[in-house]
Amino acid sequence: MPTDSPSSSSLLTPLAAIDAFCRQILTAAGADHATAEAATRGMIHGSRHGIDSHGVRLLAHYVKGLVEGRLNPSPKLALATAFGAVASLDADNAHGALATYTAMTHATRLAGEFGIGSVAIRNSSHFGPAGAYAIDAAEHGFIGFAFCNSDSFVRLHDGAMRFHGTNPIACAVPVRGQNPWLFDMATSAVPYNRVQLYRSLGRELPAGVASDERGYDTRNPEVADMLAPLGGEFGFKGAGLAGICEILSAVLTGMKLSFDIAPMPGPDFSTPRGLGAFVIALKPGAFVDIDTFDAAMTRYLDTLRSSPAREGFNVMAPGDREWKVAVHREKEGIELDPATVESFRALGSTYGVNSPV
Amino acid sequence: MPTDSPSSSSLLTPLAAIDAFCRQILTAAGADHATAEAATRGMIHGSRHGIDSHGVRLLAHYVKGLVEGRLNPSPKLALATAFGAVASLDADNAHGALATYTAMTHATRLAGEFGIGSVAIRNSSHFGPAGAYAIDAAEHGFIGFAFCNSDSFVRLHDGAMRFHGTNPIACAVPVRGQNPWLFDMATSAVPYNRVQLYRSLGRELPAGVASDERGYDTRNPEVADMLAPLGGEFGFKGAGLAGICEILSAVLTGMKLSFDIAPMPGPDFSTPRGLGAFVIALKPGAFVDIDTFDAAMTRYLDTLRSSPAREGFNVMAPGDREWKVAVHREKEGIELDPATVESFRALGSTYGVNSPV
Repeated sequence: MPTDSPSSSSLLTPLAAIDAFCRQILTAAGADHATAEAATRGMIHGSRHGIDSHGVRLLAHYVKGLVEGRLNPSPKLALATAFGAVASLDADNAHGALATYTAMTHATRLAGEFGIGSVAIRNSSHFGPAGAYAIDAAEHGFIGFAFCNSDSFVRLHDGAMRFHGTNPIACAVPVRGQNPWLFDMATSAVPYNRVQLYRSLGRELPAGVASDERGYDTRNPEVADMLAPLGGEFGFKGAGLAGICEILSAVLTGMKLSFDIAPMPGPDFSTPRGLGAFVIALKPGAFVDIDTFDAAMTRYLDTLRSSPAREGFNVMAPGDREWKVAVHREKEGIELDPATVESFRALGSTYGVNSPV
Repeated sequence: MPTDSPSSSSLLTPLAAIDAFCRQILTAAGADHATAEAATRGMIHGSRHGIDSHGVRLLAHYVKGLVEGRLNPSPKLALATAFGAVASLDADNAHGALATYTAMTHATRLAGEFGIGSVAIRNSSHFGPAGAYAIDAAEHGFIGFAFCNSDSFVRLHDGAMRFHGTNPIACAVPVRGQNPWLFDMATSAVPYNRVQLYRSLGRELPAGVASDERGYDTRNPEVADMLAPLGGEFGFKGAGLAGICEILSAVLTGMKLSFDIAPMPGPDFSTPRGLGAFVIALKPGAFVDIDTFDAAMTRYLDTLRSSPAREGFNVMAPGDREWKVAVHREKEGIELDPATVESFRALGSTYGVNSPV
């Protein structure tokens, strides 16, 4: 959860300026219009909603991939197979945001025709925040699911090896007259950057979220070698959910299993990483009268938001926190972290574009 | 994990005898052939695989529902809507196993034609183990998902009210030449019967799995009033997963939200409970060459099963534990718990059928 304190207001940068800068830099780095547009949209989804780990801090990372060859700056996306309400999209090593927005658009088209649609994505790359694609479906009136796998960081239940990636599951559901219900979770106990953050802060990790290289729990971020699957003592649940992501994103696409994927931070930035991903869209009105659906969704959320909480706490629906951050940031702008500020200035200098910070 | 110790071998009852008894009793209680068949098949899936909470201990519960009117003993199942690759099945207050097997059979038919198929189930009832329906898809060569919601037992993250049911997610995936990958989880930290078990044993609960009526964690099973969502400190993940089940099973079907569902144990056994459920089937060969799929699934599982474990532990794929129990129980039979033995004898006496125990 970001904290944009009043005292830091002078450091806030408008979202629109950051958005424009990302597009200009990506374009200057060789990305075609569709790539610059999709990659920026994905990152801005993260930064707007407070998911900073998957926001514009990734710009320099993506530029490196575009320049050195990991990412195709002008890919030719094409359906590899198409069968009724499903398809396999060959993304030609596109930026993952372009691949996944394209896949979700096709999935919603299929769902419009068949009630449900699903697209397996091949030859994709890091797609940033999974919720960005689920919400794209919800904003068009569909229930959207997005899954991917990624390079290994997470042990199995009782395991002592980095086996699965943090393999996220995102789902968004349209709510009439309101922002969508928006759920986006890693199937690991915490994201890996939490370990990195606690390392830099010299703080103890929460219990049961990371393990040493023998697979034993550790609260020392310095010896944390892998993440635990979601669930603690019941980590077989997190590991099984990661398995669903793995099977849909890698097995059903013929792409790389997490333990075969080259590390995101390199050193190799010239070889495409062979990532898969998977999206599903459902058309509510194909299952039930749309007024019934809308009324039930509203009643579910109203009841949830007004339900009793533990003293001193309040209850939120998935996405409520993100929408609140979005309102704030759209109005006030974002305080970028020092490393991102530095990378923006360096990119601006390299490509002759004025950095907004 | 059941323990059928050698010393109890004289109490083991063959699965076939239990299966036959369930069918005879259900039929004697008024169930039509399809209901007796499906309800028995669902319960035997639970008992065969060691999921005893959802096994034949439910027989007396289902008989009460059939006799008193909660369940329709001779339902007329019909598609309420059908649109491309999806449908809504009105189960006419059937036993949940009949409703869900019927829905999954239709979903696999749709997936065979469209690559994916999905069925929302209306006017259903308690369906027992969710994995039974996912595996039905996998045994026919499809990836299967099954979801349902149920009467409220689980608080929200930071919540202090029984809000969601234990809302399970099940997924099964075919593996060439092997048993399917089989994943079946409650989205609560533990099942409610774990609390009941620990209460009867006078044991402390694990930390973070149950709360008192104000929503605070308790390890005392006597004061445990509700379950925690999966994830402990990150319980918003378990609550969000429960939300997916709720939206698919209740909102997308127009059926009851968990907090509106009458309690499973009564006292009212005469009114249908208005439960929904949801199934999805995917045809692997519609997304990727089937040999590629089979090879990747095998490599994934081989690597998983041979991956390093914490000292003294071993790593298992979802379902491995269940398949192992199944082999044992198919050969040796099952040791039924005392309450189930007693209920079998009472049912046998009521309906003039010899109890196998």
